[in-house]
Amino acid sequence: MTSFQLLSTDGLARRGRLTTPHGVVETPVFMPVGTQATVKGLLPEQLEAIGAQIVLGNTYHLALRPGADLIAEMGGLHRFMGWTGPILTDSGGYQVYSLAPTRRIDDHAAVFRSHIDGALFELTPEKAVEIQEQLGTDIAMCLDECPPFGTDPGRLKEAVGRTIHWAERCRAAHRREDQALFGIVQGGTDLELRGKCAAALVALEFPGYALGGFSVGETAEQMTAVLEASAALLPADKPRYLMGVGRPQDIVEAVARGIDMFDCVLPTRNGRNAQAFTMDGPIRLRNACHKRDSAPLEVNCPCYCCRKFSRAYLHHLFQADEMLGPMLLSLHNVAFYLRLMAAIRQAIEAGEFARFREVSLARWGDRT
Amino acid sequence: MTSFQLLSTDGLARRGRLTTPHGVVETPVFMPVGTQATVKGLLPEQLEAIGAQIVLGNTYHLALRPGADLIAEMGGLHRFMGWTGPILTDSGGYQVYSLAPTRRIDDHAAVFRSHIDGALFELTPEKAVEIQEQLGTDIAMCLDECPPFGTDPGRLKEAVGRTIHWAERCRAAHRREDQALFGIVQGGTDLELRGKCAAALVALEFPGYALGGFSVGETAEQMTAVLEASAALLPADKPRYLMGVGRPQDIVEAVARGIDMFDCVLPTRNGRNAQAFTMDGPIRLRNACHKRDSAPLEVNCPCYCCRKFSRAYLHHLFQADEMLGPMLLSLHNVAFYLRLMAAIRQAIEAGEFARFREVSLARWGDRT
Repeated sequence: MTSFQLLSTDGLARRGRLTTPHGVVETPVFMPVGTQATVKGLLPEQLEAIGAQIVLGNTYHLALRPGADLIAEMGGLHRFMGWTGPILTDSGGYQVYSLAPTRRIDDHAAVFRSHIDGALFELTPEKAVEIQEQLGTDIAMCLDECPPFGTDPGRLKEAVGRTIHWAERCRAAHRREDQALFGIVQGGTDLELRGKCAAALVALEFPGYALGGFSVGETAEQMTAVLEASAALLPADKPRYLMGVGRPQDIVEAVARGIDMFDCVLPTRNGRNAQAFTMDGPIRLRNACHKRDSAPLEVNCPCYCCRKFSRAYLHHLFQADEMLGPMLLSLHNVAFYLRLMAAIRQAIEAGEFARFREVSLARWGDRT
Repeated sequence: MTSFQLLSTDGLARRGRLTTPHGVVETPVFMPVGTQATVKGLLPEQLEAIGAQIVLGNTYHLALRPGADLIAEMGGLHRFMGWTGPILTDSGGYQVYSLAPTRRIDDHAAVFRSHIDGALFELTPEKAVEIQEQLGTDIAMCLDECPPFGTDPGRLKEAVGRTIHWAERCRAAHRREDQALFGIVQGGTDLELRGKCAAALVALEFPGYALGGFSVGETAEQMTAVLEASAALLPADKPRYLMGVGRPQDIVEAVARGIDMFDCVLPTRNGRNAQAFTMDGPIRLRNACHKRDSAPLEVNCPCYCCRKFSRAYLHHLFQADEMLGPMLLSLHNVAFYLRLMAAIRQAIEAGEFARFREVSLARWGDRT
């Protein structure tokens, strides 16, 4: 029930349309992150109002708390969190590595202790699929092994082998026809491993492909080079999702290399920390220079925060440690990312993406 | 420009209408508390949506941070905080006692150290009026002296004398015709002192009167007795405001004694702590019994929280320490207080307040 249509291209940049059981997603798209069944600090009606098309949930977090069976009992993740649009769930592979202590990984499963209560938890590829089918999301991800940046070549090769093996098992276990299962290409900065992984996953004919293991410590140059080579290995008629990336300039650069889908915690995390994204670059609202500034955060931003409040008020909210500060700035920052993606889509449609990219990088700094 | 119209009575309970420069307020009314220029966790558009008619600000807090001059520069408190309806500001007398360390109070002024940065601050009656005129709120309060519960009779008498003296000075200093200045009756549980204070303030012909020094440690019986006697001392054609009170049952009991206006931090404070108000009594959302409960918090509540989410989801949000939990529960709790007041107004209009009170007290427990 999920399909992808490539509408037009501009260089390597792609303008596409992803149709899911819960709605249509225009790509390139940014997916606000709702790890624990809520995009931090935002109401679903606010997400709708600022034009969010699809949000993310996290298999690892939701399986540990409140539990996939509970969410299924409550009618699935959409109903549980009050979001009627499409949802993609990450498989939990990354979180097993980054959050859970005393883990053991072999070909059978990832075994780890919950970061919440220390309970022992075994995640097999089949279990990752089962959980995501219980959650009932539109797009599920295969369980992958995502070793840290700098892992030695032998260990990295083993992880890629396991990621391929697990992708096969996920594919075999997956049942729900109203849910698309995407494969995840790993391989760190090793282009040969990336190529091997991509070829194996493409042979499995997934309806979409993710690039994992980016933004984990590599330099911007490494990321760009690997990204360009990896994207080229993926079929043109399937959506391409760059997991966990990133800053506005990273997104523009990745779109320039043919990526369609993004997620990142930066807009909400920075929003909670008084850091705003604007088209003119970042703004730190705690800085004293904003204390008496009656201007809105961003003049042409149509979000509720920018329509109603001054920088002076936002500065005051953060100084006074008021919840409304994180709420308003998270709202603005997510709205900024969504505006950025709309501008990117428009530029691609108009065949002006190269110019858009040039202007963006001049504003935010060139990372390539 | 502010006027009060007594529309009808039912026993001692009163149905009134307060007209202010920023809009009409139907009484009895509950005023959500926006101490630091924000009702904690709620957007102004949410306050509007749930029918808030007037909100509170606090002179003490706003004078210390961000400063009344800054708010004036930003166009006044309404514009600063994005609330277009009426605002009442408390004078700061209570906060000087409850928050600020190393204070000294004499007939001239209250001198205290800021609880934020320790800076020395002098608050005279004239200064309290000046600050509130800078804030530009619809209703300002006289500076009063509010000694703690249990203060010895001599000291209490001195505080009442000073409250009267300061009320005279506030009245003399007050200039803004688009702002009403209310007097505050103090006197603790001493009915003679309450009577003396009320008589002196009534002679000054304020457009409204507050009863201060309640809910500071006295028993429910003491409060009810003093409240009944004190309300009777106030002119029938002026609004009566019971400061900082209280629980739903306290409000019903105070309306039964002729009070028109209320404020209290309970709905937002309890909301942040996972405690919900409902017509059937309080609910603690962290309790395990809510873990798998697909029912809304309150079945007939039209607020966004109750329309969209289950108790199971709210339980999850608090267990996962997600901001959305406090946001949604603060919204529901304030909406609950506003619904309670609407039901009270309707009962008075219908001449059925005695019955309403009886039913309410049977639900929530009889305090009298």
